Amino acid sequence: MATDILDRFYGVIPAGGVGTRLWPLSRAAAPKFLHDLTGSGSTLIRATYDRLTPLAGERIMVVTGTAHRGAVCEQLPELDDHNLLLESEPKDSAAAIGLAAAILHRRDPETIMGSFAADQVVGPLEVFLEAVREAIHTAATGKIVTIGIRPTLPSTGFGYIRQGGRLDIEGAPSATDVAEFVEKPSEDVARTYLASGDYLWNAGMFVAPTSLMLKHLELNQPELHAGLQEIAAAWDGDDRQAVIERVWPTLPKIAIDYAVAEPAAAAGDVAMVPGIFTWDDVGDFAAIGRLNPASENSDLTVLGDGARVYSDQASGVVVSDSKRVIALIGIDDVVIVDTPDALLVTTRDHAQQVKQAVEALKASGQVDVL
Amino acid sequence: MATDILDRFYGVIPAGGVGTRLWPLSRAAAPKFLHDLTGSGSTLIRATYDRLTPLAGERIMVVTGTAHRGAVCEQLPELDDHNLLLESEPKDSAAAIGLAAAILHRRDPETIMGSFAADQVVGPLEVFLEAVREAIHTAATGKIVTIGIRPTLPSTGFGYIRQGGRLDIEGAPSATDVAEFVEKPSEDVARTYLASGDYLWNAGMFVAPTSLMLKHLELNQPELHAGLQEIAAAWDGDDRQAVIERVWPTLPKIAIDYAVAEPAAAAGDVAMVPGIFTWDDVGDFAAIGRLNPASENSDLTVLGDGARVYSDQASGVVVSDSKRVIALIGIDDVVIVDTPDALLVTTRDHAQQVKQAVEALKASGQVDVL
Repeated sequence: MATDILDRFYGVIPAGGVGTRLWPLSRAAAPKFLHDLTGSGSTLIRATYDRLTPLAGERIMVVTGTAHRGAVCEQLPELDDHNLLLESEPKDSAAAIGLAAAILHRRDPETIMGSFAADQVVGPLEVFLEAVREAIHTAATGKIVTIGIRPTLPSTGFGYIRQGGRLDIEGAPSATDVAEFVEKPSEDVARTYLASGDYLWNAGMFVAPTSLMLKHLELNQPELHAGLQEIAAAWDGDDRQAVIERVWPTLPKIAIDYAVAEPAAAAGDVAMVPGIFTWDDVGDFAAIGRLNPASENSDLTVLGDGARVYSDQASGVVVSDSKRVIALIGIDDVVIVDTPDALLVTTRDHAQQVKQAVEALKASGQVDVL
Repeated sequence: MATDILDRFYGVIPAGGVGTRLWPLSRAAAPKFLHDLTGSGSTLIRATYDRLTPLAGERIMVVTGTAHRGAVCEQLPELDDHNLLLESEPKDSAAAIGLAAAILHRRDPETIMGSFAADQVVGPLEVFLEAVREAIHTAATGKIVTIGIRPTLPSTGFGYIRQGGRLDIEGAPSATDVAEFVEKPSEDVARTYLASGDYLWNAGMFVAPTSLMLKHLELNQPELHAGLQEIAAAWDGDDRQAVIERVWPTLPKIAIDYAVAEPAAAAGDVAMVPGIFTWDDVGDFAAIGRLNPASENSDLTVLGDGARVYSDQASGVVVSDSKRVIALIGIDDVVIVDTPDALLVTTRDHAQQVKQAVEALKASGQVDVL
């Protein structure tokens, strides 16, 4: 029964990653997912949670760093303690998603998990949910299902998924095989991908039976798998803290794409459902400009509750995390991010280079603002 | 005797004017003259005072607003109370300089006063002093002497002085007549002025016997003259405060150029000494870039004690009045002025438009940052 299959779904939200290109707004103590970057009134993690509840109810697990426990609980007051996985140190996505898989599998081996990063912007909701429903139906046939995003430009910032032949699955009319995962391409290659229509962006959205995730993890990363199983065995008991403190630091750091998705694809166990919804990973401040169009009378996007901006012949993006007056005069395509202890001034075209600034500040020891 | 003539000199420093184009650094509570805008370690008023002491010793009078009493005394601890004239409200330059003239004249009718605004940058010192010495010698022959600045570009921001025939005065070989004062010209006219070589900038530097200043003030502004004489009569007595409170608010507001210099020039009583020193009125942030060349390895001028600036492919001027980290990436000819409660981002080419921003902020009631 279709409804039975959907009932097996459990949402997983990995909330890691500082979002270095969004410095100084996003930083170690207040990473990207804790900000409202769309002017919606919701932080990205809150919006991600709300996006999953129509399918998952409160069957949603969050994986984040111990440092963000308080902020995440404030954002998600309904999140139960047994659904909050705290990493004592970052161990990349295979450990985070793998631990969720191992714990959920122990609780119910029939679980179909769906992993969706905490810091992406998606819409409209119903289109997203329909793609997830198709992915769940496809996963139930014994597949790891990735939701690929139909590309809108020849991005060199994402990996791509080459679409294979159409599958014939009840409840998942658009599901296809995956021919291969490919790394971030050069711009020329990205153009050919875009033109062919066969390549979709890998947005890191995976829907899969926990059993299949763990099978491929065990095949490809046996050490990681063993460690995660040891933690999972202790998770819902009294030893949780002691075991995680002992085992977690020893786990290998590897991305879920390398640990599971790519080898599983090579083994013929990965399918794809195309996502025809709008998707943005809010990778830099240029994205914030795209996601928050300026008002009709202005070429300037202004984000921030207390923003006091005067502008004259100015265009671009202002993100204000202070109460200061900001005056902009005669400057185009500027990006200004104003926080109490750090100020960034750049242009939309240079938005990607913010990462280097953060690295340089770190190298020079100015870590108080990172 | 030449030395006798120089001994009659008394410096006057009008310290008024907020310097609106230097907002948010310069503002009502901390006007331009209270800032170090050259990186010299001295505020502009301190540097102005020091520039006059080789000729005037402590015979220097400062005219400023009551609000700035504390800051001025902190900058000029040697300034005696009887040499500090405090305006309860701004009344333009004729009242300020005229009051100094009236008080100094009562103390010693032989005084030759020299008025130099508190917010200009001048150098080298010896060239300036030699021009002032020539101006004093010329003034002693019964002239109001203006020191004209040899223009370096066709500025439309200054009034000009058309040079007349050479005078033949002992101790003042370069003194000439003044043919006329002319208002701020259009750019085309300014180009013809610059090409002709006959026009100098009117920098508002006047050296004159107090008696002659007062004579022309009485002729042209009898009401203002009478009020100033009434205040001056009470100044060094017990009634100072009562009289100034009663009379000062009634005085007409007029610039010294209209009240004295232009009518005196028409009467043949004004001479000029050319100033071949470097002069800048620090009119906007572009001037700050000129006055503070970037270091050899950078295209960025950075002003501010605690400045923490990271730049990558950036040029322009950064003035930091905060301890915040400022990161600039891929932006040229930018002007950034960072203060605790207000931030300005513009370009060198738009530096003059800062005034309109201040006016707009005032109009919208955001006076807390002005």
